[in-house]
Amino acid sequence: MRIVAALGGNALARRGEAISAQNQRANAARAADALAPLITEHEVVITHGNGPQVGLLLDETEHDTSVPAYPLDVVGAETEGMIGYLVEEALTRRLPGTAFATLLTLTVVDADDPALRRPTKPIGPVLDEATAHRLASERGFTVARDTGGWRRVVPSPVPLRPLELRAIAHLVDGGFTVVTSGGGGVPVTLDAAGRPTGVEGVVDKDLAAAVLARELGASVLLLLTDVDGLYRNFGSPAAELIDRLDLGDAAAMLSGGGLPAGSMRPKLEAAVAFATAGGTSIIASLDDAVRALLGQAGTTVAR
Amino acid sequence: MRIVAALGGNALARRGEAISAQNQRANAARAADALAPLITEHEVVITHGNGPQVGLLLDETEHDTSVPAYPLDVVGAETEGMIGYLVEEALTRRLPGTAFATLLTLTVVDADDPALRRPTKPIGPVLDEATAHRLASERGFTVARDTGGWRRVVPSPVPLRPLELRAIAHLVDGGFTVVTSGGGGVPVTLDAAGRPTGVEGVVDKDLAAAVLARELGASVLLLLTDVDGLYRNFGSPAAELIDRLDLGDAAAMLSGGGLPAGSMRPKLEAAVAFATAGGTSIIASLDDAVRALLGQAGTTVAR
Repeated sequence: MRIVAALGGNALARRGEAISAQNQRANAARAADALAPLITEHEVVITHGNGPQVGLLLDETEHDTSVPAYPLDVVGAETEGMIGYLVEEALTRRLPGTAFATLLTLTVVDADDPALRRPTKPIGPVLDEATAHRLASERGFTVARDTGGWRRVVPSPVPLRPLELRAIAHLVDGGFTVVTSGGGGVPVTLDAAGRPTGVEGVVDKDLAAAVLARELGASVLLLLTDVDGLYRNFGSPAAELIDRLDLGDAAAMLSGGGLPAGSMRPKLEAAVAFATAGGTSIIASLDDAVRALLGQAGTTVAR
Repeated sequence: MRIVAALGGNALARRGEAISAQNQRANAARAADALAPLITEHEVVITHGNGPQVGLLLDETEHDTSVPAYPLDVVGAETEGMIGYLVEEALTRRLPGTAFATLLTLTVVDADDPALRRPTKPIGPVLDEATAHRLASERGFTVARDTGGWRRVVPSPVPLRPLELRAIAHLVDGGFTVVTSGGGGVPVTLDAAGRPTGVEGVVDKDLAAAVLARELGASVLLLLTDVDGLYRNFGSPAAELIDRLDLGDAAAMLSGGGLPAGSMRPKLEAAVAFATAGGTSIIASLDDAVRALLGQAGTTVAR
């Protein structure tokens, strides 16, 4: 069975933990433990988030006075290299006989995507209001109120396809376990001749994983995170894990309330996108990956 | 014809120029112009250096007080992502119809390589003597005198093979133009079970390119740099470009004097390594790539 597994940004950089190389390495080893039984049984394509890491490296380049701060597409590419390395190293340590391949990915987005003109995705550190307004005027950043203060927000365009789709498919068809579309891939627009231009934005990695799963003809999209799945009445004493959602229930949940704030909305949107294309999507805790595939954990979204 | 083309670190970050994203992008476009005629005619595998960039990003992580400085293997992986992106973007802009694939590469080195215990390769900024000694005692760096001051030096182990060799070959055989072994690849040792561990070192990218050329059965190794080739009596009024060296001449040149300091020695060593394996190596200026392949520019090293 062909599976696309998306590792949440927090799989490698856990909430509240320093984003050190050592912590990321330990977390990558845990992710490799969770994914190993899937990889030995199935064709697995792995994607990963980069939210915490892109914030850290962006902060470093912005504090570097020797060169102008690097734009977001370039910093995103740095994180694809770094996280891709840590994931491939950890997976190869866990399964030394397996042939892994980590492919740098550019994700094609629509130059007319209204999201490019409406920054919404918070990145980088939480700022106080004065600093936020200063950065907005000095550097042209868009800033917005977020939990605990202010943050820079950037566009998060809808992913259309990975530019390297043919290479990814060629590797998967050849039996390689591929790590790709890291951090959602570096967003690029294409001109009429097909020439790419990097975009200052961050693609949602769950949506990119859904596109990858559809384009590769995968059977299952596994969205792995640090919670058990979707909950009914989240945050109340009556909270209850939802084990299965059909497309109607999911649409109602997305249009109504009931979804906890944060990253569950894009996960459910990604799950619905792939389920609409005929696949099975599962939102589950990383440590439950194997049980989730058997329908024994997580929230399954399917037609 | 199958060609491995190695872009010097200075192809993307020119001497004396700020290592800004803008400058690197402009230089990547120039490199793409130089490589495009080769790519449309031949099977080309592209590698690139990362010396200037690894120094810059290392400096940024060392100034970041929020997390411990990232080790060299992790920073090397960041540069593979960043430079790989800039190169793939530039190549795709130049040849929108071509299928490029940029593969993150781990380069296997020998855990008993004496080079691992003898740091020689200067990286990062030039330091004054007091700072050099302070960093040596505070951070355990090895430092050495270099042109204009002191610098950190790190091990430069001999590359044995890319860990992802099968994936690289599968992509090249499938007709993809592959960017790989960036910065020489992240050096890793393997334990008896084949489990990789990242090494604090930098692999020479020309030697890594020679290994890649040998393992992929390439006909030609093109070592592209910012000088015309090797010179006889370099630096004197009688200086003369050497158009052809056999293995005997090359061995004499490596063991005697006559080689200018800096990066020409590893280039000639890489050229000799591939020529010894039966291939043709050419050291030439990036802008002369096409003419060098026709034997009209650069220094050819062959049996």
